[in-house]
Amino acid sequence: MKLLYPTSLKLDPSLLEGFGASLQPYNVREPIPEEHTDAEVLIAWTNTPSNLKDAASRLKNLKWIQSLAAGPNDVLNAGFDPKTIAITTGSGLHDQTVAEHTLGLLLVSARKFHLMRDSQMQGKWPGNLGGPQPDKEPGTFNTLSEARITVWGFGNIAKQLTPWLRALGADVKGIARSAGVRDGVQVYSEDDLSEILKETDALIMILPGSDSTKNALNAERLKLLPKHAWVVNVGRGTCIDEDALNSALDNGEIGGAALDVFATEPLPESSPLYKQKNVVLSPHAAGGRPRGAEGLIAENLRRFLAKQELKNAL
Amino acid sequence: MKLLYPTSLKLDPSLLEGFGASLQPYNVREPIPEEHTDAEVLIAWTNTPSNLKDAASRLKNLKWIQSLAAGPNDVLNAGFDPKTIAITTGSGLHDQTVAEHTLGLLLVSARKFHLMRDSQMQGKWPGNLGGPQPDKEPGTFNTLSEARITVWGFGNIAKQLTPWLRALGADVKGIARSAGVRDGVQVYSEDDLSEILKETDALIMILPGSDSTKNALNAERLKLLPKHAWVVNVGRGTCIDEDALNSALDNGEIGGAALDVFATEPLPESSPLYKQKNVVLSPHAAGGRPRGAEGLIAENLRRFLAKQELKNAL
Ligand SMILES: NC(=O)c1ccc[n+]([C@@H]2O[C@H](COP(=O)([O-])OP(=O)(O)OC[C@H]3O[C@@H](n4cnc5c(N)ncnc54)[C@H](OP(=O)(O)O)[C@@H]3O)[C@@H](O)[C@H]2O)c1
Ligand SMILES: NC(=O)c1ccc[n+]([C@@H]2O[C@H](COP(=O)([O-])OP(=O)(O)OC[C@H]3O[C@@H](n4cnc5c(N)ncnc54)[C@H](OP(=O)(O)O)[C@@H]3O)[C@@H](O)[C@H]2O)c1
Repeated sequence: MKLLYPTSLKLDPSLLEGFGASLQPYNVREPIPEEHTDAEVLIAWTNTPSNLKDAASRLKNLKWIQSLAAGPNDVLNAGFDPKTIAITTGSGLHDQTVAEHTLGLLLVSARKFHLMRDSQMQGKWPGNLGGPQPDKEPGTFNTLSEARITVWGFGNIAKQLTPWLRALGADVKGIARSAGVRDGVQVYSEDDLSEILKETDALIMILPGSDSTKNALNAERLKLLPKHAWVVNVGRGTCIDEDALNSALDNGEIGGAALDVFATEPLPESSPLYKQKNVVLSPHAAGGRPRGAEGLIAENLRRFLAKQELKNAL
Repeated sequence: MKLLYPTSLKLDPSLLEGFGASLQPYNVREPIPEEHTDAEVLIAWTNTPSNLKDAASRLKNLKWIQSLAAGPNDVLNAGFDPKTIAITTGSGLHDQTVAEHTLGLLLVSARKFHLMRDSQMQGKWPGNLGGPQPDKEPGTFNTLSEARITVWGFGNIAKQLTPWLRALGADVKGIARSAGVRDGVQVYSEDDLSEILKETDALIMILPGSDSTKNALNAERLKLLPKHAWVVNVGRGTCIDEDALNSALDNGEIGGAALDVFATEPLPESSPLYKQKNVVLSPHAAGGRPRGAEGLIAENLRRFLAKQELKNAL
């Protein structure tokens, strides 16, 4: 049984030994060499679209693809036969890095580091943003302390992030497909969304990209948010209607948006979001550094060989 | 017994009732009215230098000044007689807000939100800062996870901040005047500074402004830091030799500096620090919002009347 692992990140193949599999490195930017087209398992990380498309047509023995991305939209769109090939995601490998980035975006939004930067680059002291300030005024978002934070998409990343937000004093609610208490956080279903958005100082979106999440945050829902509320998106760009977001910003319907993901990436230079003073733009930088990938691959390799259900199966 | 409280912040005087004191509001930007020059207690917050100078000469009965600032340099420099007038600080009222701001500055530094902003304002996608990235490479500071963070000045603010840094995965050491374990953190004396600076990815300075802390971070000590290390200063600007810092940045001796305080504030427009790409400038915005001031004043008022030692006495 042959497993192909990518050279696009540092992986220690010795941590995958002991299963009797033939472990072969491959270049994610080139077609898979002819002698490796018999592989049954493909580990994918930042493969080019042409590499994946080519693999979909040439790897006739392929049974399982382990993506190291939390949202493997690239693999899903490459044309692999879902009837014969299992796909598993890298969900869990990015929790710490994405949660850290999200906390950073949230603090930039609250503490206005983006506006301080603009002033600095003009050689001017941003005096209006410093010195004595009113604290926790209603109708403002300037601290996480006692801020009402709603996390829409309450999965692995949200569970890593929430204890940090609470330590900083925030009041955290979750929204997911099913309601209930998770990790001590009250999670609501989307039926309650309208009510919750009205009482939100910062909305953090960590939804996967799918048909059911497309434009989840639309014009109507943006209007429900308080005028001072910030939107932070680290899930997928397709989950926000960007035109509606831009209008909401123009009309002062929300306080601002800190965005790591966009419907089209790189965000086209024609997008009006670049020039929005209260948009904080981050170039899909939250994740991109899988941690502990060998552990997930080894566990799934064990399950694969034992014909057990795979972890993170789609 | 008369107590004067400032109208420069929202204070609830009902929380100071019950001591039999006469509680009188006053304007911190004007001379104290003649009928109030008999006050024994002055609560100070963002008073103008001329208000303080005038009070120092006219309030003949004054016995105690409660500043709401953590570092009451303004009161100390106004000419009050230290032999007859006790001065207490607002240390503790700013722990949460300053610690939050410090965490924000640290995340901006690690995640490079300042450089993303520069690119955004030029209408350009900062692609080099996003997408797949190497993780925790030695010689970089791009995450708090496993980062070696040294907090120089390990007082109230540091104690609030440290558990958050640890939750994010950082390895935290403290430096103060005396060594020992504080709140579970190993705190070293300045004798060990040289050794510790060599093994620091981010140095957070939370020192008070005083003769003994002047230029604490000088050219020699800057040279001890690794080339990728960041300096964050939220204590007092006088604790860093700004010329030496600017040279260290020019020469690539450190990774960058996130500064909330400066030797002269506002930072003069002639300062070369404005144009440093890897300086993150914040306009003394970390604190400025005392929380729970009434509790501290009431407790000290009780001690004052009971002739007990005051809290936060200088
Ligand atoms: N910006 C980056 O660099 C980066 C990095 C990694 C991941 N991501 C994105 O983040 C996403 C989430 O990652 P994760 O590891 O936290 O995933 P996860 O553990 O699978 O959690 C996904 C969450 O979204 C909820 N959800 C899914 N579809 C929904 C819908 N239609 N309506 C409402 N909620 C829905 C799920 O609800 P249930 O719990 O009720 O099923 C779950 O709570 C990934 O899919 C990826 O797109 C981005
Ligand atoms: N940026 C802002 O908006 C803002 C807001 C609030 C406060 N601050 C500044 O932050 C400072 C610290 O506040 P805090 O409430 O944490 O004060 P704190 O509780 O009094 O702690 C001060 C710390 O500094 C240490 N220290 C004092 N002099 C030192 C020296 N010469 N060498 C080494 N260490 C020394 C002390 O050491 P020991 O513990 O050994 O005595 C103590 O650990 C304030 O003085 C103020 O200047 C800034």
